[in-house]
Amino acid sequence: MSDKYIVAVVGATGAVGREMIRVLEERKFPVKTLVPLATKKKNRRTVRFKGKDITVKVTEDASFNGVDVTLFAGGDNASKEFAWEAVRRGSIVIDNSSTFRMRPDVPLIIPEVNIKHIQRHQGLIANPNCSTIQMCMAVKPLYEKLGVTRIVVSTYQAVSGKGKAAGEELKKQTKALANNRKYAPKVFPQQISFNCLPHIDIFNAAGNTLEEVKIVEETRKIFSNPQLPISATCVRVPVMNGHAQSINIQTRKRSSVDNVRKILSRSPGVTVVDEPDPVDGDEKRRTYPTPLYASGKDEVYIGRVRKDLSVEYGFNMWCVADNLRKGAALNAVQIAEFIF
Amino acid sequence: MSDKYIVAVVGATGAVGREMIRVLEERKFPVKTLVPLATKKKNRRTVRFKGKDITVKVTEDASFNGVDVTLFAGGDNASKEFAWEAVRRGSIVIDNSSTFRMRPDVPLIIPEVNIKHIQRHQGLIANPNCSTIQMCMAVKPLYEKLGVTRIVVSTYQAVSGKGKAAGEELKKQTKALANNRKYAPKVFPQQISFNCLPHIDIFNAAGNTLEEVKIVEETRKIFSNPQLPISATCVRVPVMNGHAQSINIQTRKRSSVDNVRKILSRSPGVTVVDEPDPVDGDEKRRTYPTPLYASGKDEVYIGRVRKDLSVEYGFNMWCVADNLRKGAALNAVQIAEFIF
Repeated sequence: MSDKYIVAVVGATGAVGREMIRVLEERKFPVKTLVPLATKKKNRRTVRFKGKDITVKVTEDASFNGVDVTLFAGGDNASKEFAWEAVRRGSIVIDNSSTFRMRPDVPLIIPEVNIKHIQRHQGLIANPNCSTIQMCMAVKPLYEKLGVTRIVVSTYQAVSGKGKAAGEELKKQTKALANNRKYAPKVFPQQISFNCLPHIDIFNAAGNTLEEVKIVEETRKIFSNPQLPISATCVRVPVMNGHAQSINIQTRKRSSVDNVRKILSRSPGVTVVDEPDPVDGDEKRRTYPTPLYASGKDEVYIGRVRKDLSVEYGFNMWCVADNLRKGAALNAVQIAEFIF
Repeated sequence: MSDKYIVAVVGATGAVGREMIRVLEERKFPVKTLVPLATKKKNRRTVRFKGKDITVKVTEDASFNGVDVTLFAGGDNASKEFAWEAVRRGSIVIDNSSTFRMRPDVPLIIPEVNIKHIQRHQGLIANPNCSTIQMCMAVKPLYEKLGVTRIVVSTYQAVSGKGKAAGEELKKQTKALANNRKYAPKVFPQQISFNCLPHIDIFNAAGNTLEEVKIVEETRKIFSNPQLPISATCVRVPVMNGHAQSINIQTRKRSSVDNVRKILSRSPGVTVVDEPDPVDGDEKRRTYPTPLYASGKDEVYIGRVRKDLSVEYGFNMWCVADNLRKGAALNAVQIAEFIF
């Protein structure tokens, strides 16, 4: 591939936008010109790309003239205002916001899971929620081979999923508390440092958070199974980066734990890190993935695969991924790679 | 009650032992003499009780002569070595270790849940695991009224459950990381600061941790239901104190969320903190319990009660308690209060 595409990134200075630019460079996406765009007018900012500092411009309709593909990571408002305008001006749009994910005319794509859905795109392709992506990466191979009849998931989500300011709040609040000073929450509804908050996004009338609703509805759309039984509880934990999930599944077919591990380890983008016996009897060397381990990596990691004997055919597993990479930026760039 | 009992605490300088002494004082347990005992010989140490410093002695068989009740919080080895010896010398023993919990001749007691089992005690009563206690407090009222047919629980467990040194490790490691220094894990198998470890206690051959096995087996014993379907995943999170649990239950009878809240709020020792609508529309004022909120309090707190529509009759709830208090010290003292 020659470097022939004009690629715009909206929200280029945010946590996901910065990661998108890094991933574009790392994966040698054929970028002729990078157009970093911000949603707010601030003092002159630049982003680093292939050894050069590129000035960030404020997003306006004309920004998308001549752009081949635009990655949107500027939040719901930026996507609402500019995503379809970018399409009208001839850009393919890959949108990381939740705005259009459930629209029937917008494919919701995880390349390893449902790339065939991309055929019906009308210029705009949605990137799923970070939690949805990693759970689907873990569950889809088993869904294909064993038939998954119910999913109960509880999440352990890092602050980076809420953006750069959230990471700074956890860092500063923790440092303050370590020095016996206070630090009032601004980004989070309550203290996140040394605490867990079962509250990600806003609540709906049934008492679910929208994060919980997204996992359920997006997974059903991705699996083309509008009735798939899923129950989700989403919790923010004081981790900088890397989401973890405790996933309980019921399957239609019987399987062994070894077979589940084999199915998963053969799935593209999934790595099983699950040494069931302590290495040399040393309990500290039991292997399972952690958020710290997955952070900065591209794969979805699975460990702690166990039979759940409380149902006829059931399994527990522990799924960890970098929510900024496979959970957002990497998945978006993978979609772009498929199209171009 | 007059102050008439000689009360020994084994492991008096540990995280749970210190809390037991605090709870004995706070609840005005009729202590004539407090006998604080340690499992290891160290330099002269004292514990504070009712405004006095009492010297901690090293545990030996003769320590229990004349003692009315002994609270064991010195770990499995201390209980193995001394618990039945204390009974032989005439003391009632309430044991916080896991050593004897599953023995048929040892009642495993949560006073609000199964106090009737105490009748068959033979001098030694076991205090359940911290995670078991809070889950049973949340589930038992629903088990009675609605019939619980399956439980899937994922935990978010504080470091205090692993003892004083674990709390110091989290504090020091976090402070080091905040100052860009390293701090190698000693107490935990991997870095706990800004991380989550699905590894509490050691692993068995099926790949479950003993913490997960304890929740399942102890709950079945407490409910007198050896077949109760339960699946548990136990995770250590970087929280100083206070365990949280994401509990998914299936019930035999239909119920509304309001009815579940009503059943729970009428249960002794349980407080529902679950304001389903934002107060004055302010999302930050949605109420749910957190580990920080529950720490230092006696109740088991329940929030995020929601229907789980993935099964015929199912509910999710978020359960939080102080693992050193109701999860250990308070429950032990409550058992003692029942006997004396």
